[in-house]
Amino acid sequence: MGFAVHYRSVTCGELTLDNVGQQVQLAGWVNRRRDHGGLIFLDVRDRYGITQVICDPERSPDAHRIAVELRSEYVIQVVGTVNSRLPGTENPHLSTGAVEVIAQQIELLNPSRTTPFPISNESIQVDEALRLKYRYLDLRRSKLRDNMVLRHRIVKAMRDYLDDRDFLEIETPILMKSTPEGARDYLVPSRLYEGEFYALPQSPQQLKQLLMVGGLDRYFQIARCFRDEDQRADRQPEFTQLDLEMAFVDEEDVMSLIEGLLVFLIEKTTKKRIKERPFPRLSYKDVMDRYGTDHPDLRFDLPLVEISDLAAAGHFGVFKSALAAQGMVKGIRVPGAGGYSRKEIEEITEFARSLGAKGLVSLALHTNGEIKSPLTKFMSADEVQAIVQRLAGQPGDLLLFVADSAKVCNDVLFRLRVKLAERLGLIPPDELALCWVVDFPLFHYDEELKRYDAEHNPFSGMQEEDIRLLDTDPLKVRAKQYDIICNGYEIGGGSVRINIAALQHKVFSLMGMNDEQIKEQFGHMLEAFEYGAPPHGGIALGLDRLVMLFADEDSIREVIAFPKTQSAMDLLLGAPSPVDDKQLQELHLQVRPEAKKG
Amino acid sequence: MGFAVHYRSVTCGELTLDNVGQQVQLAGWVNRRRDHGGLIFLDVRDRYGITQVICDPERSPDAHRIAVELRSEYVIQVVGTVNSRLPGTENPHLSTGAVEVIAQQIELLNPSRTTPFPISNESIQVDEALRLKYRYLDLRRSKLRDNMVLRHRIVKAMRDYLDDRDFLEIETPILMKSTPEGARDYLVPSRLYEGEFYALPQSPQQLKQLLMVGGLDRYFQIARCFRDEDQRADRQPEFTQLDLEMAFVDEEDVMSLIEGLLVFLIEKTTKKRIKERPFPRLSYKDVMDRYGTDHPDLRFDLPLVEISDLAAAGHFGVFKSALAAQGMVKGIRVPGAGGYSRKEIEEITEFARSLGAKGLVSLALHTNGEIKSPLTKFMSADEVQAIVQRLAGQPGDLLLFVADSAKVCNDVLFRLRVKLAERLGLIPPDELALCWVVDFPLFHYDEELKRYDAEHNPFSGMQEEDIRLLDTDPLKVRAKQYDIICNGYEIGGGSVRINIAALQHKVFSLMGMNDEQIKEQFGHMLEAFEYGAPPHGGIALGLDRLVMLFADEDSIREVIAFPKTQSAMDLLLGAPSPVDDKQLQELHLQVRPEAKKG
Repeated sequence: MGFAVHYRSVTCGELTLDNVGQQVQLAGWVNRRRDHGGLIFLDVRDRYGITQVICDPERSPDAHRIAVELRSEYVIQVVGTVNSRLPGTENPHLSTGAVEVIAQQIELLNPSRTTPFPISNESIQVDEALRLKYRYLDLRRSKLRDNMVLRHRIVKAMRDYLDDRDFLEIETPILMKSTPEGARDYLVPSRLYEGEFYALPQSPQQLKQLLMVGGLDRYFQIARCFRDEDQRADRQPEFTQLDLEMAFVDEEDVMSLIEGLLVFLIEKTTKKRIKERPFPRLSYKDVMDRYGTDHPDLRFDLPLVEISDLAAAGHFGVFKSALAAQGMVKGIRVPGAGGYSRKEIEEITEFARSLGAKGLVSLALHTNGEIKSPLTKFMSADEVQAIVQRLAGQPGDLLLFVADSAKVCNDVLFRLRVKLAERLGLIPPDELALCWVVDFPLFHYDEELKRYDAEHNPFSGMQEEDIRLLDTDPLKVRAKQYDIICNGYEIGGGSVRINIAALQHKVFSLMGMNDEQIKEQFGHMLEAFEYGAPPHGGIALGLDRLVMLFADEDSIREVIAFPKTQSAMDLLLGAPSPVDDKQLQELHLQVRPEAKKG
Repeated sequence: MGFAVHYRSVTCGELTLDNVGQQVQLAGWVNRRRDHGGLIFLDVRDRYGITQVICDPERSPDAHRIAVELRSEYVIQVVGTVNSRLPGTENPHLSTGAVEVIAQQIELLNPSRTTPFPISNESIQVDEALRLKYRYLDLRRSKLRDNMVLRHRIVKAMRDYLDDRDFLEIETPILMKSTPEGARDYLVPSRLYEGEFYALPQSPQQLKQLLMVGGLDRYFQIARCFRDEDQRADRQPEFTQLDLEMAFVDEEDVMSLIEGLLVFLIEKTTKKRIKERPFPRLSYKDVMDRYGTDHPDLRFDLPLVEISDLAAAGHFGVFKSALAAQGMVKGIRVPGAGGYSRKEIEEITEFARSLGAKGLVSLALHTNGEIKSPLTKFMSADEVQAIVQRLAGQPGDLLLFVADSAKVCNDVLFRLRVKLAERLGLIPPDELALCWVVDFPLFHYDEELKRYDAEHNPFSGMQEEDIRLLDTDPLKVRAKQYDIICNGYEIGGGSVRINIAALQHKVFSLMGMNDEQIKEQFGHMLEAFEYGAPPHGGIALGLDRLVMLFADEDSIREVIAFPKTQSAMDLLLGAPSPVDDKQLQELHLQVRPEAKKG
């Protein structure tokens, strides 16, 4: 494509030996300036690449005179002739590395102050707060630039794939209705209606279902979602999901569409290997047993193994008291770690304690056949041997056990498993291990609220044969839910929905809502289901996380152009910020006196 | 593409004579049911079309028994065999009109209550409030469905076009910083920072400029924007724009890109004719003179003509007093309306009065050469003739004049011109008349605020030769601004921006801001401009309006899936709504006591 001649005839990323002899016009930033043998060498950079420009005081004194004054990040325009570089001076790391431009004219378009961190040298670690405040400078660096390009390519490929399959992209409102269900809403005060509020959507869940009731058949949206939660872990107040819904489908239809989409995206936008295809489908129960989590990292094995039955033998107090309290004993085999020092084991134990374990029970299988473990004092050799066998322990291995409630055992061993895999170097680079987790329970029991709560969301349908259990044993009802996991991250989840008003009403009732609350909050959904709601289902994929995984980043902030901090601040714009009292007055609001004092 | 066999093997829009003899499975809504000669005819509808299904009590008694119970909007699944229709019974209006499906099995997936308005008969006018409350039913009707499909296609084509030209789609935050500049912000209270607020963006203006400073070169976004304004005319609290910015460009680059994009969109997604290409470029001054507005409808001519100089002659008090008050006299020729009755002229005059005119002065040129006008009493025949000639009046024409301030003359005649064109049938159907308006003034003087205000936005650059006028005569400075107009609607506008910190500071100063205010509100922009900001410019196109024009609709609500009412209410979800006091407490807010009472 051609750029206007006014500022440039080519970008800084496109000149090759084919262009030698041509007169060209470039514009961009001074990436580096070097003086060498009386000449000035400028690396001129734009989004597309870097081109070396040479300023010769003999041939172009005017250009040279300007070049003398140039500093890093000055914006310039160059007119010159493309020349092949001398043999031995080519730069194989640059797409333009075979050529250079001999400057005839240089114009300074805008100077630059010294930047607070270097743009061209990315090996220097820069404090994240500084990078966020000067995000526009950070975006000039190749890492963030490449992430933005990758994100664009992923989203474009998503849209192409879905457009090819008759999906309509439909925008749903950002100014929505607040519902007490789920996470905390961000509220937007209404000026026209005193004391009333809009809420920013946590997801377009209800509206996408209504689009299916509306006959639009296949919907998607790259949708902005909002949750006012404390920003533990790697969360943002606003995030983006690929939101999708289909009519006349069952679980299989949605899963196979998404599996096809993910394979397409990975092949089109990355060089990564997919570990296994089709993606394995694992039941919720099996992944909890084997990995202690519903989002297991399958790039490595290291399964967890329950030994509660074997731990009941002998007289080991730690095991006995955990089992007496309805807990369990679960272990993991650490291959080749039988020779770990006391200090190394203590480090690992400390890590387990930081996750909530009271401690770790270790069993080292020395290569000479000796077993070193506190267990040997309280259990018979046969009893110990049965445990070793259950974990398939080999000479040279280390076995580690947690004895506690099921929740603590799983939480600790899930994270310990990942930590050990990293320590043992078991995680292959450039591999994506994807799997589906299915057969989720529809409900869990919320001990705090003393009621059933939806595992996924209250709109998920249930397996037909389990519907009768709603009346007798709701916790046994399996949802028509599917989560998609990649390298230990949940990158998406969805379900086939309820489309029958009476069944939806029953789910809300089980969640402790009375008829009035149901009508007030979800009356529009129940009413819609009475006007010919088709069977439908869908999914949402977390876009930020998906791009993060594809880009090999550790934080979603690295794949968002203007992220907020962990504490929800925008350091570039300075948001949030106080507003004029006049603005609050128009919204019929005032800051509470106790807050003002604080 | 293939649907899962579970619910359907084909859609309701795809069967043709090629499929005769095949067994198929369909799913959809009962659009209509007719009993005819012992058979039941079902029109089964989905997003893709309508297929006729025949239930024969002899051949498939079970299917027929179910069909007897079916009503409009019931959701069903049909298994049957494709049959060619008898000659003479084909339906040329349906893509599937050559065939029918002989039902073997029917399953009722979900019944429907009687809908509050008919889905299949769209000729019946339905109250808009009812349509909005049951939006999911309105979306089943072909008009809204087609609009949603068109909107999807337009947006997809936009993205394809821009992706082909190296643009990156980049998401900018919705939780932004409030600035008192421009329209009223929607605010979002912060929970973590007491008494502080985010604001929803009126546009991503600042961030897209920072992306250019960040070297990303070519940005776009289909961006949601928010303005808490009183909803006069056809506005929504949230709206969508194609937001775009480019580095190293001048006005010509942006205009030619957008002109290419619009031609591509029109040719790809509509059957409309473009009146003139390349789009005419008109100066702000010329369009104000000739059409009384900066967004003229060029599908017809009917120019306005100023006659202030000629009106100064004679003794016509209406003209004289307008001119004495620094006003003007401006007229329009209404071809072939010389024979309008007194009643017709009175109707037109009443319309002009409703727009703020004190009245209209008429001059009828009868076909017999006679002139009928109040002017003849106060002006000589020559003086009257000069006016007729200025307007190129012909026998049989009617000339109408407004004498008032320039603002009133233009406001009235701009709307009168459109009204007359409609009345005279001068507006060709299926034509899009596009033009650019350029050479806008950078500032206007805001009489209320007693200060200069930016005509477009405070970031617009100015013609180089006018920069010196900033100090002497700011109202004479011409901006590097361009608006794109289609059929009398402004569908977009943009500018080449300021990229020099000192110049940007001067513009803010002229707008009455002191140094402290500038730093507080725009310090991050001025600082960014000091780190090598490239020349850049961009534009925003109003997507809702564009789709509305392409879809031949009169309101943007017809091309938005879930619009709010003119008074910013969501009738489907019931938003805005009161929230729990607990929610407000967490946000450190309370409703003002005086508001509670009201």
